[in-house]
Amino acid sequence: MSDTPTASLIVIGNEILSGRTRDANIQFLASALGKIGAPLVEVRVIPDIEKEIVTAVNASRSKFTYVFTTGGIGPTHDDITAVCIAKAFGVPLVRHQPSVEKMEHYYGDKLNAARLKMADLPEGSEPIETRVTSAPGFRIENVYVLAGVPSIAQAMFDSVAPSLAHGAPIVSRYVEAHMGEGDLAETLTEIQNAFPAVDLGSYPFFRTGRVGLSVVVKGTDVDAIDGAIEQVVKAVEALDQTYSVDAVLEA
Amino acid sequence: MSDTPTASLIVIGNEILSGRTRDANIQFLASALGKIGAPLVEVRVIPDIEKEIVTAVNASRSKFTYVFTTGGIGPTHDDITAVCIAKAFGVPLVRHQPSVEKMEHYYGDKLNAARLKMADLPEGSEPIETRVTSAPGFRIENVYVLAGVPSIAQAMFDSVAPSLAHGAPIVSRYVEAHMGEGDLAETLTEIQNAFPAVDLGSYPFFRTGRVGLSVVVKGTDVDAIDGAIEQVVKAVEALDQTYSVDAVLEA
Repeated sequence: MSDTPTASLIVIGNEILSGRTRDANIQFLASALGKIGAPLVEVRVIPDIEKEIVTAVNASRSKFTYVFTTGGIGPTHDDITAVCIAKAFGVPLVRHQPSVEKMEHYYGDKLNAARLKMADLPEGSEPIETRVTSAPGFRIENVYVLAGVPSIAQAMFDSVAPSLAHGAPIVSRYVEAHMGEGDLAETLTEIQNAFPAVDLGSYPFFRTGRVGLSVVVKGTDVDAIDGAIEQVVKAVEALDQTYSVDAVLEA
Repeated sequence: MSDTPTASLIVIGNEILSGRTRDANIQFLASALGKIGAPLVEVRVIPDIEKEIVTAVNASRSKFTYVFTTGGIGPTHDDITAVCIAKAFGVPLVRHQPSVEKMEHYYGDKLNAARLKMADLPEGSEPIETRVTSAPGFRIENVYVLAGVPSIAQAMFDSVAPSLAHGAPIVSRYVEAHMGEGDLAETLTEIQNAFPAVDLGSYPFFRTGRVGLSVVVKGTDVDAIDGAIEQVVKAVEALDQTYSVDAVLEA
Protein backbone atom coordinates (compact mmCIF):
# COMPACT_ATOMS: atom_id res chain seq x y z
CA MET A 1 0.00 0.00 0.00
CA SER A 2 2.98 2.32 0.47
CA ASP A 3 3.09 3.18 -3.23
CA THR A 4 -0.59 4.15 -3.35
CA PRO A 5 -0.82 7.91 -3.76
CA THR A 6 -2.83 9.64 -1.04
CA ALA A 7 -4.78 12.87 -1.10
CA SER A 8 -6.01 15.32 1.48
CA LEU A 9 -8.47 18.17 1.14
CA ILE A 10 -8.46 21.46 3.01
CA VAL A 11 -11.81 23.21 2.74
CA ILE A 12 -11.21 26.91 3.39
CA GLY A 13 -14.61 28.18 4.29
CA ASN A 14 -16.24 30.23 7.00
CA GLU A 15 -19.52 29.57 5.20
CA ILE A 16 -19.20 25.82 5.82
CA LEU A 17 -18.24 26.30 9.48
CA SER A 18 -21.19 28.65 10.06
CA GLY A 19 -23.62 26.15 8.55
CA ARG A 20 -24.74 28.63 5.90
CA THR A 21 -23.53 26.38 3.09
CA ARG A 22 -23.54 22.59 2.89
CA ASP A 23 -20.22 21.53 1.37
CA ALA A 24 -20.39 19.72 -1.96
CA ASN A 25 -16.70 19.52 -2.81
CA ILE A 26 -15.78 16.81 -0.30
CA GLN A 27 -18.02 14.24 -1.94
CA PHE A 28 -17.02 15.15 -5.50
CA LEU A 29 -13.28 15.00 -4.77
CA ALA A 30 -13.64 11.84 -2.66
CA SER A 31 -15.33 10.01 -5.55
CA ALA A 32 -13.07 11.39 -8.24
CA LEU A 33 -9.87 10.64 -6.31
CA GLY A 34 -11.03 7.10 -5.49
CA LYS A 35 -11.65 6.46 -9.17
CA ILE A 36 -8.08 7.33 -10.11
CA GLY A 37 -6.62 5.38 -7.19
CA ALA A 38 -5.37 8.36 -5.18
CA PRO A 39 -7.82 8.01 -2.30
CA LEU A 40 -8.84 10.91 -0.11
CA VAL A 41 -7.61 10.05 3.38
CA GLU A 42 -8.23 13.26 5.31
CA VAL A 43 -10.38 16.38 5.09
CA ARG A 44 -10.06 19.49 7.19
CA VAL A 45 -12.49 22.38 7.19
CA ILE A 46 -10.82 25.52 8.48
CA PRO A 47 -11.74 29.21 8.72
CA ASP A 48 -10.52 32.06 6.49
CA ILE A 49 -7.68 32.86 8.91
CA GLU A 50 -4.14 33.17 7.58
CA LYS A 51 -2.40 31.33 10.40
CA GLU A 52 -4.83 28.41 10.21
CA ILE A 53 -4.44 28.08 6.45
CA VAL A 54 -0.63 28.28 6.47
CA THR A 55 -0.40 25.72 9.29
CA ALA A 56 -2.84 23.30 7.68
CA VAL A 57 -1.20 23.50 4.25
CA ASN A 58 2.29 22.93 5.61
CA ALA A 59 1.16 20.04 7.82
CA SER A 60 -0.61 18.34 4.93
CA ARG A 61 1.82 18.87 2.07
CA SER A 62 4.58 16.90 3.81
CA LYS A 63 2.18 14.10 4.79
CA PHE A 64 0.19 13.33 1.63
CA THR A 65 1.01 12.82 -2.03
CA TYR A 66 -1.51 15.48 -3.04
CA VAL A 67 -3.16 18.31 -1.16
CA PHE A 68 -6.23 20.01 -2.57
CA THR A 69 -7.71 23.21 -1.23
CA THR A 70 -11.10 24.68 -2.09
CA GLY A 71 -12.25 28.24 -1.56
CA GLY A 72 -10.85 31.71 -1.08
CA ILE A 73 -9.51 32.52 -4.56
CA GLY A 74 -12.02 35.17 -5.60
CA PRO A 75 -11.61 38.97 -5.76
CA THR A 76 -12.85 40.04 -2.32
CA HIS A 77 -11.04 40.86 0.93
CA ASP A 78 -11.93 37.47 2.44
CA ASP A 79 -10.23 35.63 -0.45
CA ILE A 80 -6.83 35.07 1.11
CA THR A 81 -5.86 31.59 -0.09
CA ALA A 82 -3.20 32.65 -2.63
CA VAL A 83 -1.49 34.93 -0.09
CA CYS A 84 -1.51 32.14 2.48
CA ILE A 85 -0.16 29.50 0.08
CA ALA A 86 2.64 31.89 -0.90
CA LYS A 87 3.48 32.33 2.80
CA ALA A 88 3.36 28.57 3.38
CA PHE A 89 5.95 28.11 0.63
CA GLY A 90 7.95 31.24 1.50
CA VAL A 91 7.59 32.77 -1.98
CA PRO A 92 6.15 36.07 -3.24
CA LEU A 93 3.01 36.47 -5.34
CA VAL A 94 3.65 37.15 -9.01
CA ARG A 95 1.08 38.49 -11.48
CA HIS A 96 0.41 35.84 -14.13
CA GLN A 97 0.25 37.79 -17.40
CA PRO A 98 -1.63 35.23 -19.56
CA SER A 99 -4.41 35.20 -16.94
CA VAL A 100 -4.48 39.01 -16.99
CA GLU A 101 -5.02 38.86 -20.75
CA LYS A 102 -7.83 36.31 -20.43
CA MET A 103 -9.46 38.49 -17.79
CA GLU A 104 -9.08 41.64 -19.93
CA HIS A 105 -10.90 39.82 -22.70
CA TYR A 106 -13.66 38.56 -20.38
CA TYR A 107 -14.23 41.59 -18.14
CA GLY A 108 -13.41 44.46 -20.52
CA ASP A 109 -13.74 47.78 -18.71
CA LYS A 110 -15.04 45.97 -15.60
CA LEU A 111 -11.55 44.64 -14.91
CA ASN A 112 -10.44 46.38 -11.73
CA ALA A 113 -7.76 46.02 -9.07
CA ALA A 114 -9.83 43.58 -7.05
CA ARG A 115 -10.32 41.27 -10.02
CA LEU A 116 -6.68 41.54 -11.08
CA LYS A 117 -5.78 40.10 -7.67
CA MET A 118 -7.07 36.77 -9.02
CA ALA A 119 -4.11 36.68 -11.43
CA ASP A 120 -1.58 36.89 -8.58
CA LEU A 121 -0.13 33.41 -8.10
CA PRO A 122 2.63 32.22 -5.77
CA GLU A 123 5.99 32.23 -7.57
CA GLY A 124 6.74 28.81 -9.02
CA SER A 125 3.12 27.79 -9.43
CA GLU A 126 1.32 26.73 -12.58
CA PRO A 127 -2.16 28.07 -13.34
CA ILE A 128 -5.08 25.63 -13.46
CA GLU A 129 -7.18 26.89 -16.33
CA THR A 130 -10.70 25.87 -17.32
CA ARG A 131 -13.37 26.79 -19.79
CA VAL A 132 -15.65 28.11 -17.06
CA THR A 133 -13.70 31.08 -15.68
CA SER A 134 -10.99 33.42 -16.81
CA ALA A 135 -9.42 33.52 -13.34
CA PRO A 136 -7.23 30.47 -12.71
CA GLY A 137 -6.67 28.05 -9.85
CA PHE A 138 -3.06 27.00 -9.44
CA ARG A 139 -0.70 24.19 -8.48
CA ILE A 140 2.47 24.69 -6.51
CA GLU A 141 4.49 21.51 -5.94
CA ASN A 142 1.93 18.97 -4.63
CA VAL A 143 -0.68 21.54 -3.58
CA TYR A 144 -3.66 22.12 -5.89
CA VAL A 145 -5.64 25.27 -5.20
CA LEU A 146 -9.22 25.09 -6.50
CA ALA A 147 -12.20 27.44 -6.39
CA GLY A 148 -14.93 26.99 -3.78
CA VAL A 149 -17.87 27.14 -6.20
CA PRO A 150 -18.50 23.43 -6.92
CA SER A 151 -18.90 23.71 -10.70
CA ILE A 152 -15.59 25.58 -10.97
CA ALA A 153 -13.81 23.29 -8.48
CA GLN A 154 -14.91 20.30 -10.57
CA ALA A 155 -13.72 21.82 -13.83
CA MET A 156 -10.37 22.64 -12.22
CA PHE A 157 -10.02 19.11 -10.87
CA ASP A 158 -10.91 17.64 -14.26
CA SER A 159 -8.21 19.71 -15.89
CA VAL A 160 -5.45 18.45 -13.55
CA ALA A 161 -6.65 14.84 -13.10
CA PRO A 162 -4.75 13.47 -16.12
CA SER A 163 -1.46 14.72 -14.65
CA LEU A 164 -1.93 13.02 -11.26
CA ALA A 165 -0.21 9.71 -10.44
CA HIS A 166 -2.86 7.00 -10.61
CA GLY A 167 -2.86 4.06 -8.22
CA ALA A 168 -5.01 0.99 -8.56
CA PRO A 169 -8.59 2.24 -8.72
CA ILE A 170 -10.66 1.72 -5.59
CA VAL A 171 -13.46 -0.68 -6.47
CA SER A 172 -16.57 -0.69 -4.30
CA ARG A 173 -19.48 -3.14 -4.23
CA TYR A 174 -22.27 -3.35 -1.76
CA VAL A 175 -25.17 -5.43 -0.51
CA GLU A 176 -28.28 -3.97 1.08
CA ALA A 177 -30.55 -5.92 3.37
CA HIS A 178 -33.52 -5.08 5.55
CA MET A 179 -32.18 -6.16 8.90
CA GLY A 180 -30.41 -4.50 11.79
CA GLU A 181 -26.65 -4.16 11.71
CA GLY A 182 -26.44 -6.16 14.93
CA ASP A 183 -28.06 -9.20 13.25
CA LEU A 184 -25.14 -9.51 10.88
CA ALA A 185 -22.33 -8.04 12.98
CA GLU A 186 -20.64 -11.24 14.13
CA THR A 187 -20.64 -12.74 10.63
CA LEU A 188 -19.25 -9.51 9.16
CA THR A 189 -16.33 -9.68 11.59
CA GLU A 190 -15.59 -13.22 10.35
CA ILE A 191 -15.80 -12.13 6.71
CA GLN A 192 -13.53 -9.12 7.31
CA ASN A 193 -11.01 -11.46 8.97
CA ALA A 194 -11.22 -13.93 6.08
CA PHE A 195 -10.62 -11.17 3.48
CA PRO A 196 -8.02 -8.86 5.00
CA ALA A 197 -7.28 -7.28 1.60
CA VAL A 198 -10.68 -5.59 1.51
CA ASP A 199 -12.21 -2.87 3.61
CA LEU A 200 -15.63 -4.03 4.80
CA GLY A 201 -17.93 -1.32 6.11
CA SER A 202 -21.43 -1.53 7.52
CA TYR A 203 -23.80 1.45 7.36
CA PRO A 204 -27.31 1.48 8.79
CA PHE A 205 -30.13 3.25 6.99
CA PHE A 206 -33.74 4.12 7.71
CA ARG A 207 -36.01 4.36 4.69
CA THR A 208 -39.78 4.64 4.70
CA GLY A 209 -39.83 3.45 8.28
CA ARG A 210 -37.73 0.32 7.73
CA VAL A 211 -34.34 -0.40 9.22
CA GLY A 212 -31.66 -1.72 6.90
CA LEU A 213 -27.95 -1.86 6.36
CA SER A 214 -25.56 -1.44 3.47
CA VAL A 215 -22.52 -3.66 3.59
CA VAL A 216 -19.84 -2.01 1.49
CA VAL A 217 -16.77 -3.95 0.36
CA LYS A 218 -14.00 -1.94 -1.20
CA GLY A 219 -10.39 -2.16 -2.13
CA THR A 220 -8.19 -2.75 -5.16
CA ASP A 221 -8.35 -6.59 -5.30
CA VAL A 222 -11.48 -7.38 -7.28
CA ASP A 223 -11.32 -11.15 -6.63
CA ALA A 224 -11.17 -10.56 -2.90
CA ILE A 225 -14.05 -8.08 -3.14
CA ASP A 226 -16.18 -10.60 -5.06
CA GLY A 227 -15.29 -13.33 -2.56
CA ALA A 228 -16.30 -11.18 0.38
CA ILE A 229 -19.51 -10.02 -1.31
CA GLU A 230 -20.47 -13.66 -1.96
CA GLN A 231 -20.05 -14.45 1.73
CA VAL A 232 -22.14 -11.44 2.74
CA VAL A 233 -24.95 -12.52 0.41
CA LYS A 234 -24.85 -16.05 1.88
CA ALA A 235 -25.02 -14.64 5.40
CA VAL A 236 -28.01 -12.47 4.51
CA GLU A 237 -29.81 -15.40 2.84
CA ALA A 238 -29.13 -17.60 5.89
CA LEU A 239 -31.07 -15.06 7.95
CA ASP A 240 -33.96 -15.43 5.48
CA GLN A 241 -34.35 -11.76 4.71
CA THR A 242 -35.20 -9.95 1.57
CA TYR A 243 -32.05 -8.47 0.19
CA SER A 244 -30.79 -6.69 -2.87
CA VAL A 245 -27.36 -6.82 -4.41
CA ASP A 246 -25.99 -4.05 -6.46
CA ALA A 247 -22.54 -4.00 -7.92
CA VAL A 248 -20.85 -0.68 -8.49
CA LEU A 249 -17.58 -0.76 -10.31
CA GLU A 250 -15.70 2.46 -9.88
CA ALA A 251 -12.83 2.35 -12.30
CA MET B 1 -13.35 36.75 22.22
CA SER B 2 -11.26 34.59 24.57
CA ASP B 3 -14.30 33.67 26.65
CA THR B 4 -16.32 32.52 23.64
CA PRO B 5 -16.61 28.75 23.77
CA THR B 6 -15.30 26.99 20.66
CA ALA B 7 -16.23 23.67 19.14
CA SER B 8 -14.59 21.22 16.80
CA LEU B 9 -16.05 18.25 14.99
CA ILE B 10 -14.30 15.00 14.09
CA VAL B 11 -16.25 13.08 11.46
CA ILE B 12 -15.18 9.44 11.72
CA GLY B 13 -16.18 8.01 8.42
CA ASN B 14 -14.67 5.96 5.64
CA GLU B 15 -17.99 6.39 3.83
CA ILE B 16 -17.48 10.18 3.66
CA LEU B 17 -13.86 9.85 2.50
CA SER B 18 -14.84 7.38 -0.23
CA GLY B 19 -17.56 9.70 -1.53
CA ARG B 20 -20.25 7.07 -0.96
CA THR B 21 -22.07 9.32 1.50
CA ARG B 22 -22.44 13.08 1.50
CA ASP B 23 -22.01 14.27 5.06
CA ALA B 24 -24.99 15.97 6.67
CA ASN B 25 -23.73 16.35 10.23
CA ILE B 26 -21.27 19.17 9.57
CA GLN B 27 -23.99 21.59 8.50
CA PHE B 28 -26.39 20.63 11.29
CA LEU B 29 -23.77 20.98 14.03
CA ALA B 30 -22.35 24.18 12.50
CA SER B 31 -25.79 25.84 12.59
CA ALA B 32 -26.77 24.50 15.98
CA LEU B 33 -23.47 25.48 17.61
CA GLY B 34 -23.59 28.96 16.09
CA LYS B 35 -27.06 29.48 17.54
CA ILE B 36 -25.88 28.76 21.07
CA GLY B 37 -22.75 30.86 20.66
CA ALA B 38 -20.21 28.03 20.71
CA PRO B 39 -19.14 28.33 17.08
CA LEU B 40 -17.68 25.44 15.13
CA VAL B 41 -14.12 26.45 14.27
CA GLU B 42 -12.65 23.26 12.79
CA VAL B 43 -13.85 20.04 11.20
CA ARG B 44 -11.74 17.01 10.43
CA VAL B 45 -12.91 13.99 8.47
CA ILE B 46 -10.75 10.97 9.26
CA PRO B 47 -10.88 7.25 8.46
CA ASP B 48 -11.93 4.41 10.78
CA ILE B 49 -8.33 3.83 11.91
CA GLU B 50 -7.52 3.67 15.61
CA LYS B 51 -4.30 5.68 15.51
CA GLU B 52 -5.93 8.47 13.47
CA ILE B 53 -8.90 8.70 15.81
CA VAL B 54 -6.83 8.71 19.02
CA THR B 55 -4.47 11.36 17.62
CA ALA B 56 -7.26 13.60 16.35
CA VAL B 57 -9.26 13.40 19.59
CA ASN B 58 -6.26 14.18 21.77
CA ALA B 59 -5.15 17.06 19.55
CA SER B 60 -8.63 18.58 19.57
CA ARG B 61 -9.70 18.11 23.18
CA SER B 62 -6.87 20.27 24.50
CA LYS B 63 -7.48 22.96 21.88
CA PHE B 64 -11.25 23.55 21.86
CA THR B 65 -13.91 24.00 24.52
CA TYR B 66 -15.96 21.18 23.02
CA VAL B 67 -15.12 18.32 20.70
CA PHE B 68 -17.88 16.42 18.93
CA THR B 69 -17.39 13.18 17.06
CA THR B 70 -19.86 11.52 14.72
CA GLY B 71 -19.85 7.91 13.55
CA GLY B 72 -18.49 4.56 14.60
CA ILE B 73 -20.65 3.73 17.62
CA GLY B 74 -22.73 0.90 16.12
CA PRO B 75 -22.46 -2.85 16.67
CA THR B 76 -20.17 -3.90 13.81
CA HIS B 77 -16.43 -4.54 13.61
CA ASP B 78 -15.82 -1.15 11.95
CA ASP B 79 -17.43 0.69 14.88
CA ILE B 80 -14.31 1.46 16.90
CA THR B 81 -14.99 4.95 18.23
CA ALA B 82 -15.64 3.97 21.88
CA VAL B 83 -12.46 1.85 22.02
CA CYS B 84 -10.45 4.71 20.53
CA ILE B 85 -11.87 7.35 22.88
CA ALA B 86 -11.07 5.08 25.84
CA LYS B 87 -7.48 4.81 24.56
CA ALA B 88 -7.26 8.56 24.03
CA PHE B 89 -8.22 9.08 27.69
CA GLY B 90 -6.24 6.09 28.99
CA VAL B 91 -9.27 4.45 30.61
CA PRO B 92 -10.94 1.04 30.18
CA LEU B 93 -14.38 0.43 28.68
CA VAL B 94 -17.08 -0.34 31.23
CA ARG B 95 -20.48 -1.86 30.41
CA HIS B 96 -23.21 0.64 31.20
CA GLN B 97 -25.92 -1.39 32.91
CA PRO B 98 -28.88 1.01 32.43
CA SER B 99 -28.18 0.96 28.68
CA VAL B 100 -28.06 -2.85 28.74
CA GLU B 101 -31.52 -2.83 30.32
CA LYS B 102 -32.89 -0.43 27.71
CA MET B 103 -31.44 -2.61 24.96
CA GLU B 104 -32.88 -5.78 26.53
CA HIS B 105 -36.27 -4.16 26.46
CA TYR B 106 -35.88 -2.97 22.86
CA TYR B 107 -34.16 -5.96 21.23
CA GLY B 108 -35.57 -8.86 23.31
CA ASP B 109 -34.05 -12.13 22.13
CA LYS B 110 -32.22 -10.31 19.32
CA LEU B 111 -29.84 -8.75 21.83
CA ASN B 112 -26.48 -10.38 21.10
CA ALA B 113 -22.81 -9.81 21.93
CA ALA B 114 -22.36 -7.39 19.00
CA ARG B 115 -25.24 -5.19 20.13
CA LEU B 116 -24.16 -5.32 23.78
CA LYS B 117 -20.87 -3.74 22.65
CA MET B 118 -22.86 -0.51 22.17
CA ALA B 119 -23.32 -0.35 25.98
CA ASP B 120 -19.54 -0.35 26.59
CA LEU B 121 -18.54 3.22 27.45
CA PRO B 122 -15.16 4.62 28.47
CA GLU B 123 -14.85 4.73 32.26
CA GLY B 124 -15.86 8.14 33.58
CA SER B 125 -18.20 8.95 30.72
CA GLU B 126 -21.88 9.83 30.88
CA PRO B 127 -24.33 8.31 28.41
CA ILE B 128 -26.12 10.57 25.93
CA GLU B 129 -29.60 9.12 25.75
CA THR B 130 -32.38 9.93 23.29
CA ARG B 131 -35.87 8.80 22.40
CA VAL B 132 -34.72 7.43 19.05
CA THR B 133 -32.34 4.62 20.03
CA SER B 134 -31.72 2.38 23.01
CA ALA B 135 -27.94 2.47 22.45
CA PRO B 136 -26.39 5.66 23.86
CA GLY B 137 -23.81 8.17 22.72
CA PHE B 138 -21.59 9.42 25.50
CA ARG B 139 -19.66 12.37 26.88
CA ILE B 140 -16.26 12.10 28.53
CA GLU B 141 -14.87 15.39 29.82
CA ASN B 142 -15.27 17.83 26.88
CA VAL B 143 -15.67 15.15 24.18
CA TYR B 144 -19.19 14.36 22.95
CA VAL B 145 -19.50 11.14 20.98
CA LEU B 146 -22.52 11.08 18.69
CA ALA B 147 -23.91 8.58 16.18
CA GLY B 148 -23.20 8.96 12.46
CA VAL B 149 -26.82 8.60 11.29
CA PRO B 150 -27.95 12.24 11.05
CA SER B 151 -31.35 11.83 12.75
CA ILE B 152 -29.68 10.13 15.73
CA ALA B 153 -26.76 12.58 15.83
CA GLN B 154 -29.26 15.44 15.93
CA ALA B 155 -31.29 13.90 18.73
CA MET B 156 -28.10 13.30 20.72
CA PHE B 157 -26.95 16.90 20.19
CA ASP B 158 -30.36 18.21 21.23
CA SER B 159 -30.16 16.24 24.45
CA VAL B 160 -26.78 17.72 25.44
CA ALA B 161 -27.25 21.26 24.10
CA PRO B 162 -28.85 22.64 27.30
CA SER B 163 -25.77 21.60 29.30
CA LEU B 164 -23.26 23.39 27.04
CA ALA B 165 -21.82 26.78 27.94
CA HIS B 166 -23.51 29.36 25.73
CA GLY B 167 -21.64 32.35 24.35
CA ALA B 168 -23.24 35.32 22.64
CA PRO B 169 -25.25 33.87 19.76
CA ILE B 170 -23.76 34.36 16.31
CA VAL B 171 -26.13 36.61 14.38
CA SER B 172 -25.99 36.52 10.58
CA ARG B 173 -27.61 38.84 8.03
CA TYR B 174 -27.05 38.97 4.35
CA VAL B 175 -27.66 40.92 1.18
CA GLU B 176 -27.95 39.36 -2.25
CA ALA B 177 -27.32 41.25 -5.46
CA HIS B 178 -27.04 40.31 -9.11
CA MET B 179 -23.55 41.56 -9.83
CA GLY B 180 -20.08 40.07 -9.86
CA GLU B 181 -18.10 39.92 -6.63
CA GLY B 182 -15.40 42.02 -8.26
CA ASP B 183 -17.82 44.93 -8.81
CA LEU B 184 -18.25 45.32 -5.07
CA ALA B 185 -14.89 44.04 -3.80
CA GLU B 186 -13.19 47.36 -3.07
CA THR B 187 -16.21 48.76 -1.24
CA LEU B 188 -16.54 45.58 0.80
CA THR B 189 -12.94 45.94 1.97
CA GLU B 190 -13.76 49.47 3.16
CA ILE B 191 -16.88 48.28 4.97
CA GLN B 192 -15.00 45.42 6.64
CA ASN B 193 -12.36 47.91 7.80
CA ALA B 194 -15.04 50.28 9.11
CA PHE B 195 -16.75 47.51 11.08
CA PRO B 196 -13.96 45.36 12.52
CA ALA B 197 -16.34 43.72 15.02
CA VAL B 198 -18.16 41.87 12.26
CA ASP B 199 -17.08 39.12 9.92
CA LEU B 200 -17.99 40.15 6.39
CA GLY B 201 -17.99 37.36 3.79
CA SER B 202 -18.71 37.44 0.07
CA TYR B 203 -19.96 34.33 -1.74
CA PRO B 204 -20.64 34.17 -5.47
CA PHE B 205 -23.59 32.22 -6.82
CA PHE B 206 -24.88 31.19 -10.23
CA ARG B 207 -28.64 30.76 -10.51
CA THR B 208 -30.62 30.31 -13.67
CA GLY B 209 -27.69 31.59 -15.67
CA ARG B 210 -27.20 34.78 -13.71
CA VAL B 211 -24.16 35.69 -11.66
CA GLY B 212 -24.73 37.08 -8.18
CA LEU B 213 -23.22 37.40 -4.78
CA SER B 214 -24.32 37.02 -1.19
CA VAL B 215 -22.69 39.40 1.24
CA VAL B 216 -22.94 37.83 4.67
CA VAL B 217 -22.33 39.88 7.80
CA LYS B 218 -22.06 37.98 11.03
CA GLY B 219 -20.90 38.36 14.58
CA THR B 220 -22.29 38.97 18.03
CA ASP B 221 -22.69 42.77 17.87
CA VAL B 222 -26.10 43.37 16.29
CA ASP B 223 -25.64 47.15 15.98
CA ALA B 224 -22.38 46.68 14.09
CA ILE B 225 -24.03 44.07 11.86
CA ASP B 226 -26.91 46.42 11.05
CA GLY B 227 -24.45 49.25 10.38
CA ALA B 228 -22.41 47.13 7.99
CA ILE B 229 -25.51 45.78 6.23
CA GLU B 230 -26.75 49.35 5.70
CA GLN B 231 -23.44 50.25 4.04
CA VAL B 232 -23.61 47.18 1.82
CA VAL B 233 -27.13 48.06 0.69
CA LYS B 234 -26.00 51.62 -0.12
CA ALA B 235 -23.06 50.32 -2.13
CA VAL B 236 -25.31 47.98 -4.10
CA GLU B 237 -27.81 50.77 -4.78
CA ALA B 238 -24.99 53.06 -5.91
CA LEU B 239 -24.17 50.51 -8.59
CA ASP B 240 -27.82 50.71 -9.71
CA GLN B 241 -28.51 47.02 -9.55
CA THR B 242 -31.54 45.09 -8.52
CA TYR B 243 -30.92 43.72 -5.07
CA SER B 244 -32.72 41.91 -2.35
CA VAL B 245 -32.13 42.13 1.36
CA ASP B 246 -33.03 39.39 3.72
CA ALA B 247 -32.43 39.47 7.43
CA VAL B 248 -31.86 36.19 9.19
CA LEU B 249 -31.64 36.32 12.94
CA GLU B 250 -30.08 33.17 14.28
CA ALA B 251 -30.49 33.25 18.02
